[in-house]
Amino acid sequence: MKIRIGIVGYGNLGKGVIKAVTENPDMEVKAIFTRREPSLINLGDSNIPVLNIDKAKDKQNDIDVMILCGGSATDIPEQGPFFAEMFNTVDSYDNHTKMPEYVSSIEAVATKTTAIIGAGWDPGLFSMMRALFEATVPNGANYTFWGEGLSQGHSDAIRRIEGVKFAAQYTIPKESAVDSVRSGKRPELIARERMSRNCFVVTLPNVDTRKIEEAIVTMPAYFADYDTTVNFISEEEFLKNHTKMPHGGMVLRSASTGESSQVMEFSLKLESNPEFTSSVMVAYARAAYKMAKEGLFGAKTVLDVPLSYISQSDRETLIKDLL
Amino acid sequence: MKIRIGIVGYGNLGKGVIKAVTENPDMEVKAIFTRREPSLINLGDSNIPVLNIDKAKDKQNDIDVMILCGGSATDIPEQGPFFAEMFNTVDSYDNHTKMPEYVSSIEAVATKTTAIIGAGWDPGLFSMMRALFEATVPNGANYTFWGEGLSQGHSDAIRRIEGVKFAAQYTIPKESAVDSVRSGKRPELIARERMSRNCFVVTLPNVDTRKIEEAIVTMPAYFADYDTTVNFISEEEFLKNHTKMPHGGMVLRSASTGESSQVMEFSLKLESNPEFTSSVMVAYARAAYKMAKEGLFGAKTVLDVPLSYISQSDRETLIKDLL
Repeated sequence: MKIRIGIVGYGNLGKGVIKAVTENPDMEVKAIFTRREPSLINLGDSNIPVLNIDKAKDKQNDIDVMILCGGSATDIPEQGPFFAEMFNTVDSYDNHTKMPEYVSSIEAVATKTTAIIGAGWDPGLFSMMRALFEATVPNGANYTFWGEGLSQGHSDAIRRIEGVKFAAQYTIPKESAVDSVRSGKRPELIARERMSRNCFVVTLPNVDTRKIEEAIVTMPAYFADYDTTVNFISEEEFLKNHTKMPHGGMVLRSASTGESSQVMEFSLKLESNPEFTSSVMVAYARAAYKMAKEGLFGAKTVLDVPLSYISQSDRETLIKDLL
Repeated sequence: MKIRIGIVGYGNLGKGVIKAVTENPDMEVKAIFTRREPSLINLGDSNIPVLNIDKAKDKQNDIDVMILCGGSATDIPEQGPFFAEMFNTVDSYDNHTKMPEYVSSIEAVATKTTAIIGAGWDPGLFSMMRALFEATVPNGANYTFWGEGLSQGHSDAIRRIEGVKFAAQYTIPKESAVDSVRSGKRPELIARERMSRNCFVVTLPNVDTRKIEEAIVTMPAYFADYDTTVNFISEEEFLKNHTKMPHGGMVLRSASTGESSQVMEFSLKLESNPEFTSSVMVAYARAAYKMAKEGLFGAKTVLDVPLSYISQSDRETLIKDLL
C-alpha cells in the first residue's frame, strides 16, 4: 500500500509536490485541497480530486500525510496547527525569527500526529549542515551564503517602485568572501562583503530610468547596504530569460582540530527553487509517515529525523549500498 | 555531570579523540585502554589513566561511551563486538564490503548498549550525504570523489617496492569529471577519469629510479588503471613536506525534478584526516550516550541518528539559532 499524500495549496510548491511524487513509487497523491473554487483549478490530464479546504476534516482516514504548500507569511502559521491536529504534516515554513513560536503552536496540537517543520533547504538542509558542522568540529565558524539565485522579496521590492513593470533580482555570493572561508580563514563579513545584487528591470514607457535606478540602489534594508547593479532590459528579453526561479547557496565551516584546519562545505545549485523544496518535503513526508507509525508524535524539525526515515531504501540496502 | 569517555587504542585516532574532547565541554576522557604495556605510553602532562585493555571489563560503571580507535582490518572486527556487549561504543569502521557482516556482529551483542558504527567521514558524513541526496531528489546519480589527499594504502604499496625508503601517494580528483557533474551532466566515469595519482618517493642510494617508476605505474589495482605521476625527492624534502595526513573529497549529486537540473555537493578539505575522524567520533559519542539513556539500544549507523543527538545545544537553541 502506498503512502497517501494530500496537498494543501496549489501554487508552485503544490505543483512541485505532484511532480516529486512521480519519482517516489511508494507514494501517491490522493487529493489537493484549495481555498479557491476547486472547479477553477486545471490539472490537465490528471484525475487527482481537487477539494475545498473545508472538506479536509472528512478525509482523515484517506490521507496519511498532508504536505502544506501555502506561503509562510500568512498561510502556514494558520494552516500548520489546523492540519497538524488532524493529520501528519510536512511544511517548509521559512520564517527564521518566528520559528520557536511556530514550533510551539504545532507542539500544542500534534499529540497524535507527526508534524515535520521547516523541511525545505533553508530552513531545512542548510539547518542540518549548520548543526552537523558545528557538532563535528566545534572550534570553528559557520557561514551561509545565498545565491546565485532569484530573490522573490527583492524582486517584489523593485516592482513596487513607480514606473516598473517587471523585475528580477539575483543574489550573488561574493567569491572573495567564499574563497576566504574555503582557505580556512574565519573572516568577519558585513553584508556588502557577503553578496552583491544584480537587478533586471522592465519599465513602463517614458519613465526616467536614472530615477528608478537611484530608487533601487538607495532602498534601505533591501539594497542600500549592498553593491547593486541595475540592468534595464526589454519586456521580450525579460520574459525569455528571467521568469525561472533558480536559486541555491552554500553553508561553509572553517574550523580546526588541534593545529589543523578543517573546511566543510555544502552547496546547492537549483534550476527550480520551488521544485527542489517540494522534492525535499516529499522525502520528509515519508519520514512523517514512518515516525507516526512508530508513535513518534509531536512537532519535529529536520534535526529530529534520522536520514533512514526519509529514504526509500530498507535498512539492509542502506548499509550495503550507501554506508 | 560530564559524559565519561574511554578510548580503546592510542594511535592517531586515539590522540585525536583526546584533542577533540577538549572542544566538547560536556565530556571528559576517563581512561585509555591499550594492548601495549601501559607504562610505555607517554601522555606528557596529561594525567589520564592508561590501562591494559583487559581491565576494561571492570570499568563498566566508570565509562559512558567507549570510542574504538583501532584499525579496521583486524582490531575493530574483534574489538567492536567485545566492547559493544559491555559498553556504549562508537567506531569508524571503514570496510565498506564487510559492513553488513560487521553490523550483524554488533547487533547480536548490543542488547543493552548503543553502538554507533562507521562514524567517520567515509563511511560517515559521506554516507549521510549519499542518503540525503538520493532521498530528496530520487531522479539522479551520486558521485563520490576522494582527495586531494594522502592514501595510506597506496603509499604502503610503493614502500613495498625494493629500493624505496619513503613514499607518499596523493589521490587527486580530476577537475574535468567534477566539473562535468557540477554542470548537471551524469557522466559514466571509469577510474582513470575520476582521479589521478601523484607519488613522492625517496629511494635508497644507487638504485635505478626508472625501474622503480615503472614498477609503480604498472602496479595492478593500485596504479595501472590511473594516470600516475612519480616524483623522486630527497629525504629532507620528504620529511619537511610529506609527513602530514591531509585528505578530503566530495559527494555530488546531479539530479533533476521535472525539467529542472538540481545539483547538490558536499565537500571536505582536511589538513588532518585522523583528527577530523576522531572529532566526528566524539560527536557521535554524545549521540550514543543520549540514545542509551532513552533505551534506544542496538547497532546504529549514522543514518539512524538524528542530528539533534550529536549536538551540544539543547532543542530550544537549535530551533532558535540553527533552523
